[in-house]
Amino acid sequence: MSDYVEGKSRWWGWGDLDQRFDAENRANIMPFLRENLGMEFDRDRFTDPTLDEIELPAPRIGDDIMGTLRRISGPENVSTDKFQRVSHCMGKSYRDTLRLRMRRIERPVDVVLWPREEKEIVEILRLAEEKNLAVIPFGGGSSVTGGVEPMAEDKAGFISLDMARFNRVLRVEATSQTAVIQAGALGPEIEEQLNEQGYTLGHFPESFDHSALGGWLATRASGRQSTGYGDIGDMVLALRMVTPRGVIDTRRVPATSAGPSILQLCVGSEGVMGIITEATMKIRPYPDVFDYRGLIFRNFAAGVSAIREMLQQGMVPTCVRLSDRTETALAQAFRSTTGNKWKRRAEDTALKLLASRGYSFDDGAFMVLGLEGEREEVEYLRSGILRLCRKLGGFHLGTSPGKQWYRSRHETAYFREQLINWGVLVDTIETATTWDNLLHLYGEVRSALRSALEEETGRSMVGCHVSHSYREGSSLYYTFFAPMAAEGKEEEQWDRVKRAASEAIMEYGGTISHHHGVGYEHAPWMREEVGDISLQALKAVKEVMDPEDVMNPGKLLPAN
Amino acid sequence: MSDYVEGKSRWWGWGDLDQRFDAENRANIMPFLRENLGMEFDRDRFTDPTLDEIELPAPRIGDDIMGTLRRISGPENVSTDKFQRVSHCMGKSYRDTLRLRMRRIERPVDVVLWPREEKEIVEILRLAEEKNLAVIPFGGGSSVTGGVEPMAEDKAGFISLDMARFNRVLRVEATSQTAVIQAGALGPEIEEQLNEQGYTLGHFPESFDHSALGGWLATRASGRQSTGYGDIGDMVLALRMVTPRGVIDTRRVPATSAGPSILQLCVGSEGVMGIITEATMKIRPYPDVFDYRGLIFRNFAAGVSAIREMLQQGMVPTCVRLSDRTETALAQAFRSTTGNKWKRRAEDTALKLLASRGYSFDDGAFMVLGLEGEREEVEYLRSGILRLCRKLGGFHLGTSPGKQWYRSRHETAYFREQLINWGVLVDTIETATTWDNLLHLYGEVRSALRSALEEETGRSMVGCHVSHSYREGSSLYYTFFAPMAAEGKEEEQWDRVKRAASEAIMEYGGTISHHHGVGYEHAPWMREEVGDISLQALKAVKEVMDPEDVMNPGKLLPAN
Repeated sequence: MSDYVEGKSRWWGWGDLDQRFDAENRANIMPFLRENLGMEFDRDRFTDPTLDEIELPAPRIGDDIMGTLRRISGPENVSTDKFQRVSHCMGKSYRDTLRLRMRRIERPVDVVLWPREEKEIVEILRLAEEKNLAVIPFGGGSSVTGGVEPMAEDKAGFISLDMARFNRVLRVEATSQTAVIQAGALGPEIEEQLNEQGYTLGHFPESFDHSALGGWLATRASGRQSTGYGDIGDMVLALRMVTPRGVIDTRRVPATSAGPSILQLCVGSEGVMGIITEATMKIRPYPDVFDYRGLIFRNFAAGVSAIREMLQQGMVPTCVRLSDRTETALAQAFRSTTGNKWKRRAEDTALKLLASRGYSFDDGAFMVLGLEGEREEVEYLRSGILRLCRKLGGFHLGTSPGKQWYRSRHETAYFREQLINWGVLVDTIETATTWDNLLHLYGEVRSALRSALEEETGRSMVGCHVSHSYREGSSLYYTFFAPMAAEGKEEEQWDRVKRAASEAIMEYGGTISHHHGVGYEHAPWMREEVGDISLQALKAVKEVMDPEDVMNPGKLLPAN
Repeated sequence: MSDYVEGKSRWWGWGDLDQRFDAENRANIMPFLRENLGMEFDRDRFTDPTLDEIELPAPRIGDDIMGTLRRISGPENVSTDKFQRVSHCMGKSYRDTLRLRMRRIERPVDVVLWPREEKEIVEILRLAEEKNLAVIPFGGGSSVTGGVEPMAEDKAGFISLDMARFNRVLRVEATSQTAVIQAGALGPEIEEQLNEQGYTLGHFPESFDHSALGGWLATRASGRQSTGYGDIGDMVLALRMVTPRGVIDTRRVPATSAGPSILQLCVGSEGVMGIITEATMKIRPYPDVFDYRGLIFRNFAAGVSAIREMLQQGMVPTCVRLSDRTETALAQAFRSTTGNKWKRRAEDTALKLLASRGYSFDDGAFMVLGLEGEREEVEYLRSGILRLCRKLGGFHLGTSPGKQWYRSRHETAYFREQLINWGVLVDTIETATTWDNLLHLYGEVRSALRSALEEETGRSMVGCHVSHSYREGSSLYYTFFAPMAAEGKEEEQWDRVKRAASEAIMEYGGTISHHHGVGYEHAPWMREEVGDISLQALKAVKEVMDPEDVMNPGKLLPAN
């Protein structure tokens, strides 16, 4: 019925209960954190909450409306069950997981619905208009910007509209390499159905397991392989979006000059204008080869130049990630220390050899290079890219570190769960800019983060990587850590850090988000991001499609 | 002062007076046309008009407003001169050139302005709001959809705002491979300034010599090399647009997830919301190699498969064009018959050899394949593409036909001028669809065109080519010919043909325009193209940015 299953899902945080951070096999990570954050890690600040500990007011939606909802979607697809309501009322941001650990739900949803067909959605929106209800589209619930949380104060109730039943690949058009996919399909559901027919979508965000096509489109997301496969906005050919005042169904054509792009007006609309129900997506043949490798550069700037050069010379890898000094050191400390001890000794020897040539995991910049495709094409590209990297000072570490990254790429989300319980503020922010401004912006945002993080305890750790690159520029993705502020001050501390970073991003030429979207966390920056007249235009579009403000109120567009 | 110069520009048609169709050196074209259209071509139906023959009402704008305009932009940049008014009141569509040959101007502009700075434009728009004037942005004036013609009936006067003075490349950012370019810069002005610094924009529409960046962006244009370099909407990173209610200045970032795309809302806005003044464009290193070749396929379908395969295998040429049977035969008849007679005899021998292997220019499909870039990259790509084409039945004709196409690619526009004077209805329409639908749509639109064209005389010629291709589909570009209807019925005839083709395009899954834009000619199809709710949304955006309907009224958005 849903991705969220009681007893299986970590509703207060990330992922499934049977997956957790494995500290025992990572002997280096605790000393590294102790040294950098000055914390002892000798007690848990938070424990995982239980449902019984959460106070939830009764649903505000009366029997008559409940009856209508049951008639529309079938009684089995309407729930006011506590587990469902709790697991649908927040996303997965630091603020969200913090509040749930504090056993605090400020704005609950009243009912969760799982519609089966588009015409049910049309009826639900009509009912919502009549009864002054708000409808929040819900895909995988992985928003880190508050995208699925009830926000408006003038509504008679909140419906979380879970798209889980819209989970099919309806049609694969092999000749055009496109597929019509329902918007509620989660990452694994999409790939499984496409892979069966020999294709891939190529969209693999960190949230892959617990996020859906509709959410990707609504937040203009990017996957980790976006350098090669493109951002979600590049991958979509056409879509259907149900608004309270009609259905948008953009023409299934590869390009058009018939006016402003309606398609790109729906992409990024974050559920405030309507609900995306299906999309025609560009698909690719399933790759023959997955070639992931590691390289190390003496410093971040050298690695940045290498990425820029490869893209501008037309050698576009599927994935290229470059960690700065702090993140490289953190990743090294995070590596598993179990397994074959001879292998580890060999690695130690290799590290010494590297050190003698001026490369270090304490002070260098680690790059993951991923190539996917046909064997011949991958080989041609690999030889060109490695030649270029060598020329620019990169040292090729072979496939082992690349494979290791690929295997463990979903583990950091579980690490975060543990860190928060230990009392560590841990979060990420991301932006993008052009190459000419990249290192400048990198430094300014890093400084702003460090100053704000160190205000309480003087300690912080700020790592960054470049991961979604273009011919003209790239994203910057920061992961930052600090000891949490005193009890009761945690959200205030985070607000201050977020504000400092956002101000630096706006001042030094970034964008408020490269791929996390806006939600309510970034909405205060939208006026500066797009300008007043554009904001008014977006509000006017909302007014046409959703004049009663039924759709996800309080998100994307700042109130004034 | 302007691209239009009295005594130099063919204001009633295309291009410069010193360039014309060269019939003498093309011995085969007249017999070909006679046979196919059943016309004798023994008299001119129209002669080129002179300015004296054009009746133009006095400008409707009074002295006070003229005085203010002169103060804003300087007296030398304000004109009510007959030549300027006449050359700014229509574009270059068949309907436009027909009416001018009939000495008919139905809707004149009252004054032409050449602002020098953005702040003048702000003032002009404010004045226009106060005085109920309409402002029509003018770049190169090459619109074929009525984009620059005055259309509203409730306005006190029409200003043609010629952006010719905004013709500079303001800044080249080599690190990011971007350039900030003013919107009035014409194709040759842009390339000249970029080439000097080692770059190219890569946008080469047929109108290249007489169209400007702002017009390309406002109509979502595509150049002939768009398969490699992208459509104009892919080439733009950021832009500035002055609206009557404020300036839009999108952030100069390579990607963002901060909401719906404001950038792609401005691209394609056709001057109805504001005037684009400058844009940050993606640029490329000037190619080392221009490798243009010809191939012939036994039929259109085989050539279409070859294009689809090369793109889907990731072998993306800079330019690939495939002509159907009729267009291939026409192009063959159009070839120059002068020059070295031994060369021509050798060609005749080659044609006989080809015929013996089943390839014919009377019955085959001619392909131009263009590769631009670094030598090594071009060679790698060429060998892969030619291998693929051979496998799919293509015959490689070498560089000579490719070069010939490249050299003569701007000549057909002059041919049209001659044909209209001879009394031939000649026009083009274009659309796009996905590969799975391409041949079906091709046939349906072709049939619709033929039926409509043959209604009067039973004769027509309809050729088509595929020219802007994507992994998922391609454009279809039709050129069609018929004897003109009886005197006084010419526009009616054209209306009928246009309507028949447009209906077929919409019914069989195309888009009303792939790269010509909407103007007023395609506006009646916009409701079907984008749907009612999207159309209302676009109107709401216009209402925010231009509540007094100052900006290019009557274009893009149908009245009801």
